Amino acid sequence: MTTPTVDDVRDLRARLLDRVEDRLDTLLRTERERWARVDPRACVPVDDVAALVAAGGKRLRPAFLLSGHLAAGGDPDDRRAVDCAAAVELVHVGALLHDDVLDDSDLRRGRSTAHVRHLRDHLHHQWRGEARRYGEGVAVLSGDFADILADRLTTELPPEVRTIWNAFLTEIVIGQQLDVAVAARSVVDPELSRWIAVCKSGRYSIHRPLLLGAALAGRSDLAPVFERYGESLGEAFQLRDDLIDLFGDSDHTGKPVGLDLETHKMTLLLALAVRRDAEVRALVEQPEWDVPRLRDRLDALGIGDVIEERIGELVADAVNALGHPSLDSGWRDELAAMAHEVAYRNR
Amino acid sequence: MTTPTVDDVRDLRARLLDRVEDRLDTLLRTERERWARVDPRACVPVDDVAALVAAGGKRLRPAFLLSGHLAAGGDPDDRRAVDCAAAVELVHVGALLHDDVLDDSDLRRGRSTAHVRHLRDHLHHQWRGEARRYGEGVAVLSGDFADILADRLTTELPPEVRTIWNAFLTEIVIGQQLDVAVAARSVVDPELSRWIAVCKSGRYSIHRPLLLGAALAGRSDLAPVFERYGESLGEAFQLRDDLIDLFGDSDHTGKPVGLDLETHKMTLLLALAVRRDAEVRALVEQPEWDVPRLRDRLDALGIGDVIEERIGELVADAVNALGHPSLDSGWRDELAAMAHEVAYRNR
Repeated sequence: MTTPTVDDVRDLRARLLDRVEDRLDTLLRTERERWARVDPRACVPVDDVAALVAAGGKRLRPAFLLSGHLAAGGDPDDRRAVDCAAAVELVHVGALLHDDVLDDSDLRRGRSTAHVRHLRDHLHHQWRGEARRYGEGVAVLSGDFADILADRLTTELPPEVRTIWNAFLTEIVIGQQLDVAVAARSVVDPELSRWIAVCKSGRYSIHRPLLLGAALAGRSDLAPVFERYGESLGEAFQLRDDLIDLFGDSDHTGKPVGLDLETHKMTLLLALAVRRDAEVRALVEQPEWDVPRLRDRLDALGIGDVIEERIGELVADAVNALGHPSLDSGWRDELAAMAHEVAYRNR
Repeated sequence: MTTPTVDDVRDLRARLLDRVEDRLDTLLRTERERWARVDPRACVPVDDVAALVAAGGKRLRPAFLLSGHLAAGGDPDDRRAVDCAAAVELVHVGALLHDDVLDDSDLRRGRSTAHVRHLRDHLHHQWRGEARRYGEGVAVLSGDFADILADRLTTELPPEVRTIWNAFLTEIVIGQQLDVAVAARSVVDPELSRWIAVCKSGRYSIHRPLLLGAALAGRSDLAPVFERYGESLGEAFQLRDDLIDLFGDSDHTGKPVGLDLETHKMTLLLALAVRRDAEVRALVEQPEWDVPRLRDRLDALGIGDVIEERIGELVADAVNALGHPSLDSGWRDELAAMAHEVAYRNR
């Protein structure tokens, strides 16, 4: 048997990712038919979920889950891996639906967010009650529904994999709660901000999906490898997110930019700047932030270069973690390539 | 072996319900300790969930789940039944947290609702951002967290039981979505209102919990018995709810009353009145309801007596469903007694 190359492993994963898309399509179509028979208005949650799924997104979590599964020697024909990869995407869609209400974001994956669309419908048709409560309420239920569809796809997970699944669900909610709490109270605590970022990005997007895949393959022994890779790369992923918000443009990203400073968000980027510079700290300790001054000071610090350097270190650390003897070279190379793609993406 | 009496089966269930309380207490205490180590503000979701659990509630769904399990001959020492009973209560708490945001209710189980408490905290401390968005956002996350704790307690359910579990989760969200949609659009459709009521009350509160318990005992053959019992009793349960809202007082119920008419809610009670009376139909087809006139017309129809009569028929039907030979007489009597308690409760 020859060792698979990077091209081999990519082809295999691409085929499984196609099956994930099919699974999502079939599930959402079947659900739509089911609820349409009850009443057209029962289809709203499935339509909200389907709209976000169809609008693209990076499918980062399914890709990491399948990579973890295949890198651990999992059976490519194991239907549970495809189902679980579809399920992590649905949980992500549910989290986006709730987050967009919490942040009052109006744009996601290049179109209006669900709560904004429902609010406009309500205003347009002059329905009863308050349009905002209606729009946000419906979006909350759609987010709940995404989680329930994800639960449906994980019916056959064995208990030891479900334990990881539950950790995956927990971290996003606690991370989000801390994010909201810290923003409201204008807390300047770089360590806590780093914890939140690791929780919301590293563990949720990379480490837990990899672990779910490996556990389905019966290879929980790979947990330490994936943990180190995931936590380092997750931090790099989050720093890139912060850079895109600070310097990106929304035509390209499909979501608003510049929001972090406007909403006093203590990002990982800002936490690093606070640790380096007393003036940044003084500025973010004000009850209202002077955004232009803060932006100038970040520019003066050369924060772009500082963060790029840190991202470089984190990627190197993630790649180093892959030196485990039981990872074959095809997957080692591919996971290293993924680390670069994630850390150096432009949206 | 003597056949257990009603007292025997009640004692046994009471012991298991105590274990459900212990399970909830232990889980919530452990979670609180876990998140307190991260940051006190990470404890907010667990505290919101714990506050609602501690505030009482009827524990109707755990009681039906354990009754279904024991009536089906399930092992009283099966830890999964106790865990699953705790899990259905947590899902209910999660649904209440989200529903109270959707309905902007200010009182639940005798105290201020979570989103109102968080809104007041925000105003009191003069935190950043909009107090309403903060209060509602935190309550949404707390509801999400309740679902995640429920998921944790169902890790060991076998796939055939998880399928019922997922149906249980689905019906509450779709029922709630239809409720919101119908209220906003002022839809007068008694059949649809009945479907929503069956979905939100009968299936969610009675039928699915009974079925979960029976399935854990490996007795899915009891499904038709519990379905007929649950759907009839669920309708009676909902009609009692509607009567309490129409005629009750909030000091006694621990939640606001009279809201259904104020919020144009097409309840099952109102749907029955619409079918009987052209004037009620004409009144609810108005874009704004004339609540005093509607109330007078309902009184003139003797709606209280009409609904009591219907409840009586439904209870009789539920009790008749219990004539299955494999239900022993102790459980048959106890389920009949529960039907009366549920249908004739006063809050």
